[in-house]
Amino acid sequence: MKKQEIQLRIEDAVTKLKETGPLVPSITNNVTINFVANAQLAAGASAAMVYLPDEGEGMALAGSAMYINMGTLQPVYAETLPRTVRALNANNKSWVLDPVGIGIGTLRTDLLKTFRECPPSIVRGNASEIIALANLWGLDTGVEKDGVRGVDSTDSVEASIPAAKALAKFIHGAAAVSGAEDVVTDGDHVAVSRGGSLLLTKITGAGCSLGGVAAAYAAAADPFIAALSAVQLYNFAGKKAAEIANGPGTMEKIFLDCIYAASPADIAGNEFEIL
Amino acid sequence: MKKQEIQLRIEDAVTKLKETGPLVPSITNNVTINFVANAQLAAGASAAMVYLPDEGEGMALAGSAMYINMGTLQPVYAETLPRTVRALNANNKSWVLDPVGIGIGTLRTDLLKTFRECPPSIVRGNASEIIALANLWGLDTGVEKDGVRGVDSTDSVEASIPAAKALAKFIHGAAAVSGAEDVVTDGDHVAVSRGGSLLLTKITGAGCSLGGVAAAYAAAADPFIAALSAVQLYNFAGKKAAEIANGPGTMEKIFLDCIYAASPADIAGNEFEIL
Amino acid sequence: MKKQEIQLRIEDAVTKLKETGPLVPSITNNVTINFVANAQLAAGASAAMVYLPDEGEGMALAGSAMYINMGTLQPVYAETLPRTVRALNANNKSWVLDPVGIGIGTLRTDLLKTFRECPPSIVRGNASEIIALANLWGLDTGVEKDGVRGVDSTDSVEASIPAAKALAKFIHGAAAVSGAEDVVTDGDHVAVSRGGSLLLTKITGAGCSLGGVAAAYAAAADPFIAALSAVQLYNFAGKKAAEIANGPGTMEKIFLDCIYAASPADIAGNEFEIL
Repeated sequence: MKKQEIQLRIEDAVTKLKETGPLVPSITNNVTINFVANAQLAAGASAAMVYLPDEGEGMALAGSAMYINMGTLQPVYAETLPRTVRALNANNKSWVLDPVGIGIGTLRTDLLKTFRECPPSIVRGNASEIIALANLWGLDTGVEKDGVRGVDSTDSVEASIPAAKALAKFIHGAAAVSGAEDVVTDGDHVAVSRGGSLLLTKITGAGCSLGGVAAAYAAAADPFIAALSAVQLYNFAGKKAAEIANGPGTMEKIFLDCIYAASPADIAGNEFEIL
Repeated sequence: MKKQEIQLRIEDAVTKLKETGPLVPSITNNVTINFVANAQLAAGASAAMVYLPDEGEGMALAGSAMYINMGTLQPVYAETLPRTVRALNANNKSWVLDPVGIGIGTLRTDLLKTFRECPPSIVRGNASEIIALANLWGLDTGVEKDGVRGVDSTDSVEASIPAAKALAKFIHGAAAVSGAEDVVTDGDHVAVSRGGSLLLTKITGAGCSLGGVAAAYAAAADPFIAALSAVQLYNFAGKKAAEIANGPGTMEKIFLDCIYAASPADIAGNEFEIL
Repeated sequence: MKKQEIQLRIEDAVTKLKETGPLVPSITNNVTINFVANAQLAAGASAAMVYLPDEGEGMALAGSAMYINMGTLQPVYAETLPRTVRALNANNKSWVLDPVGIGIGTLRTDLLKTFRECPPSIVRGNASEIIALANLWGLDTGVEKDGVRGVDSTDSVEASIPAAKALAKFIHGAAAVSGAEDVVTDGDHVAVSRGGSLLLTKITGAGCSLGGVAAAYAAAADPFIAALSAVQLYNFAGKKAAEIANGPGTMEKIFLDCIYAASPADIAGNEFEIL
């Protein structure tokens, strides 16, 4: 794929999402659940969040694509997540996995192991999470790492590229790594997207909501284009919002304004390259 | 009731809420729980959110009115909601029901059926939710519909007026339907309130927080006036905020500022008519 | 301690937090969980929120200090909170207890009684909560009170000083009382900090996020200095934000901007006195 072709496909995905407004449900953490919903709405999707097993299954069927984030696990997720993920895969629905907090607690580890058999279409995380997930699934990454300290990355995006490629190949989808520069790969192509703002690291949920928006685009494009569209949108809107915001508080809301206002051409035209 | 009389009663309700600051607890969804609390505070109430059965009962007694929203059901709600609703009705406390997500999952359906015997004072929802609830309760609405796709409406407010009237009559209270124009009815009178902004549909929780504020006014007025006061406040503040906001992100916060600043005369004077 | 020495120690704590960015996990309520995380990030910490028992224990070990807030209790907390608190105390980790809603429900009362044997380093609450907790633990406060109406205070900060001192002495740490003026005490010294804004009382979570930030500073200082640093930051940033904000909605975000921008000298230099 040439860059120009990718840009056209990003424009198509962005346009289609805004025109069709698909339902993109989530099972996501309580810290940033509001930000995820608002980012999905701003990008053009319809959002719905659930916790219960039969509701997860129902949303897997009713939704056009789904977002699953592993932060703030609840006891009922021991049943909700496996049933939802099986329903998604049985119905060939695209879904995004955000392995937040990988390495913390036994339930998270057990669930993430289970997902190996019912893999997502897109994995999104920071470098440490991407490396840890690839290792948990026994993929060849060249880096030993089985968990992270908390929710923040201690590895560089560059160091995670082999893990991201291994994950993308294994799931026949895409992996997106968030960091100072962002990487999106389908296992063969590696796109590096630039922009954003350091202020986004001072707001909880920039990563989670990016995952939710990637799921929204997955209702309108293949995993690689969906993940890249979301990353491009975030880098475009983040850079623009940082020019206006006075700090992380106002940044969050101005960033949503910029997501809402971003045109297909803005998103496709944000700086990126194919390695 | 003439329009002028209604306006005076709205002014009284708004003034009384601001002067007395009653405790108005909620059991509400995790997506918009923060927005609900902040909207209630901005309107003049004191907010408190709970999840556990005995806490729901305790809040039913301690609160002046209560808000129950069916989004993001938790397993414990199978016990919490019936016990809370029974306590509310046994103590003649006003409460607002927001049947978000009606049609999704068995617990939600079971609970909503139960509420038929312990009805709320006010039902608030979008057109699809209002029609679905009236049908679930076996009321005559002229429209067949037993659920909604997700959390957004696929019916027009106008189409829901018979269902809203049937619900209001059945509960001896009021029904409020949110949409491009908003309808509030006590089963006989039908008020149509105008204003607001399309930007509010791009923010999660505009409807939920409206329900929470209706519960706040229900601590200061009868169900019809309480629901209409909340709708008028939202249409006034929404229209004003949209003139200042640059998108859905800044809209949410400026909207709360406008709720806080709205005077009784502003709220009573917002455009509405009695059909 | 002289005021000047205290100011130097506040500057050290603020500087150390910003330079080291320690992980400060929380178990906190769902209403304000996002605000707590964002305030901790703005002050310089790394945030992580959990619900499950083994995750609470894991975070007690991984974190430099922890924040536990009793609002919106979940069923699993009956196991999570005792195990987490035991792990914190067994490992000599500082933690902040926010006894929100004390007096509501049996689980909250049972848990708060348990904490008497594994006490926190800092207790933060409004005057009514501080008095109620001291009485629940059988400390001599001179005021009879075993609960509060909801989440808002009905007692003055001044009336709570004996209870705050008794709590601080009992836990060999510090107590912080929020109100029109704020009091922080280690049982001997009593600091009174001034500033802030009435607008903060119209935003849900000003108190919760203050507790979360106090836990962040507890990773960088002793309990008294940690609590006082947080209170000084809030009074400085609250006063500054109120000069810019147009209401409670914009206030919340501008307040986070001001937290982020506040320098060690700003925080140490905010108005306070030692009684």
